[in-house]
Amino acid sequence: MEKTYVFGHKSPDTDTITSSLVMTNLEHELGNTGAVACRLGNINKETEYILNYLDIEAPELIESVEDDASVILVDHNSPSESVANLENATIKKIVDHHKIAIQTSYPLYFRVEPVGCTETILFKMYKEFNVEVTKEIAALMLSAIISDTLLLKSPTTTDEDIQAVKDLAEIAEIDYETYGLDMLKAGTDLSSFSIDEILHLDAKQIDFKDVKSIVNQVNTASINDVLEMKDDLEAGINKIIEEEDLDLFMLLITDIINSNSQVLVLGKSASLVEKAYGVTLEDNTALLEGVVSRKKQVVPIMTENA
Amino acid sequence: MEKTYVFGHKSPDTDTITSSLVMTNLEHELGNTGAVACRLGNINKETEYILNYLDIEAPELIESVEDDASVILVDHNSPSESVANLENATIKKIVDHHKIAIQTSYPLYFRVEPVGCTETILFKMYKEFNVEVTKEIAALMLSAIISDTLLLKSPTTTDEDIQAVKDLAEIAEIDYETYGLDMLKAGTDLSSFSIDEILHLDAKQIDFKDVKSIVNQVNTASINDVLEMKDDLEAGINKIIEEEDLDLFMLLITDIINSNSQVLVLGKSASLVEKAYGVTLEDNTALLEGVVSRKKQVVPIMTENA
Repeated sequence: MEKTYVFGHKSPDTDTITSSLVMTNLEHELGNTGAVACRLGNINKETEYILNYLDIEAPELIESVEDDASVILVDHNSPSESVANLENATIKKIVDHHKIAIQTSYPLYFRVEPVGCTETILFKMYKEFNVEVTKEIAALMLSAIISDTLLLKSPTTTDEDIQAVKDLAEIAEIDYETYGLDMLKAGTDLSSFSIDEILHLDAKQIDFKDVKSIVNQVNTASINDVLEMKDDLEAGINKIIEEEDLDLFMLLITDIINSNSQVLVLGKSASLVEKAYGVTLEDNTALLEGVVSRKKQVVPIMTENA
Repeated sequence: MEKTYVFGHKSPDTDTITSSLVMTNLEHELGNTGAVACRLGNINKETEYILNYLDIEAPELIESVEDDASVILVDHNSPSESVANLENATIKKIVDHHKIAIQTSYPLYFRVEPVGCTETILFKMYKEFNVEVTKEIAALMLSAIISDTLLLKSPTTTDEDIQAVKDLAEIAEIDYETYGLDMLKAGTDLSSFSIDEILHLDAKQIDFKDVKSIVNQVNTASINDVLEMKDDLEAGINKIIEEEDLDLFMLLITDIINSNSQVLVLGKSASLVEKAYGVTLEDNTALLEGVVSRKKQVVPIMTENA
């Protein structure tokens, strides 16, 4: 059977990695035995914790796909977050929960819903196609929803995500609150990373109208611990701004316990953050109270004010 | 409850009109009582036949929506085919079967599948949401699938469309072959239209890369009957090309009995049709054998060759 590459976005997070595994399993169950779970970058600490806990192998690392390859995109639809040569591939399906950022010259299966996590949609699709959600698949789905919704506390959380977590915790036989907090904390361990690695961990290139930007997010249990590296982070950010010719770089340092973000902002359009949030940057930084979701609390507000 | 406008594309066809009715009913059943079925243009002869046959009122005609209005798009996603001020509205949902031609700054419910008709997707959604498909709703869905697939003969027809037609014919208690042919023939009656009206009946603005184009399609039981109006059609097309500053206008005259299209082509990029199909235009026209689907047999081939 023809190979179908199934992958999420660059700088993979837990939703991207688990969705590629869970979507691949769904494809297999539906008869597409050529589906292969792939990833476009390194596994982060949180995902590593999950895969170790569940004893599941990571998807295959790829850098590109051959021309005319069949691909399935999960957890992203923007070509800028996808495989390098996406324009030469044939996209068979997209399952995602982000804004629409792609155009195609052909119709395809494109399923986007405004929920907190791709896995919440995949869980529905398993039910629609009458495919069994095994204990292992349920644990993968559950982990991603906990990750994307910060244990159901992010404003991106919908009733469907909450119900899915309850149903999946039962199938997976996991106490989701204890497991979830352990998992999130594992993700905040930055000790083994260089500054440059931290700045690429969960970086997304997002243009707010004409303002060419990168928004990076790191979760932490203590904002102050991260701010101890502030000088080095700023030097690293300025290097990226120059290399990528950016107008703006935002580093969201998100406190997963108290649900706030400290933002570190550099670039010539830094004042856009002040305008968008009504804050004053002091030494390039400000506290954004209650802000934890890049998608819901950064992208639309920054775009509107750009 | 807040009003939600539910509408299909400009130059409405049967799928667009019935999908706005069927989607609105689904919204009502799911509790969104503010949903209102709308349309962006006049009802065509085929759809008129269907609505008369089923004794159903046409959706409300609108020209624009107020700023910040909630809208649901069916059977299209391209802003150029949508309501004039779409950029100021909030799109709640999209259900469609065309290529992806929109970008948003927010996530939404976006459901596109590569099937022959929007109603085939809506039929699945009714089942997924456990909403009853009444006899009347089934007849609307059935009519649209027959229309878009030319009685299951168009290359856009998928197994899902075929199965849906069988299931829906049973619920609707309609002999779909007899009804379908009557319905399609009703749609080919051009006698009451002016040349200008014919040229706008099912016209879509589609840009093949940089080639600004309109592709219009009329169904007929006799290509020669339509070609009798050739001189007047050409004059009308040249007027539209000038007014809209087009590079290309294609009028597909589609023989629904023999499944071919005669194409009438004007505009400075007319030779693109010759290149794309390996034909020679004589007096601006050529027979495209086996071509009946604008979406599957025109858009991708023209785009690839542009």
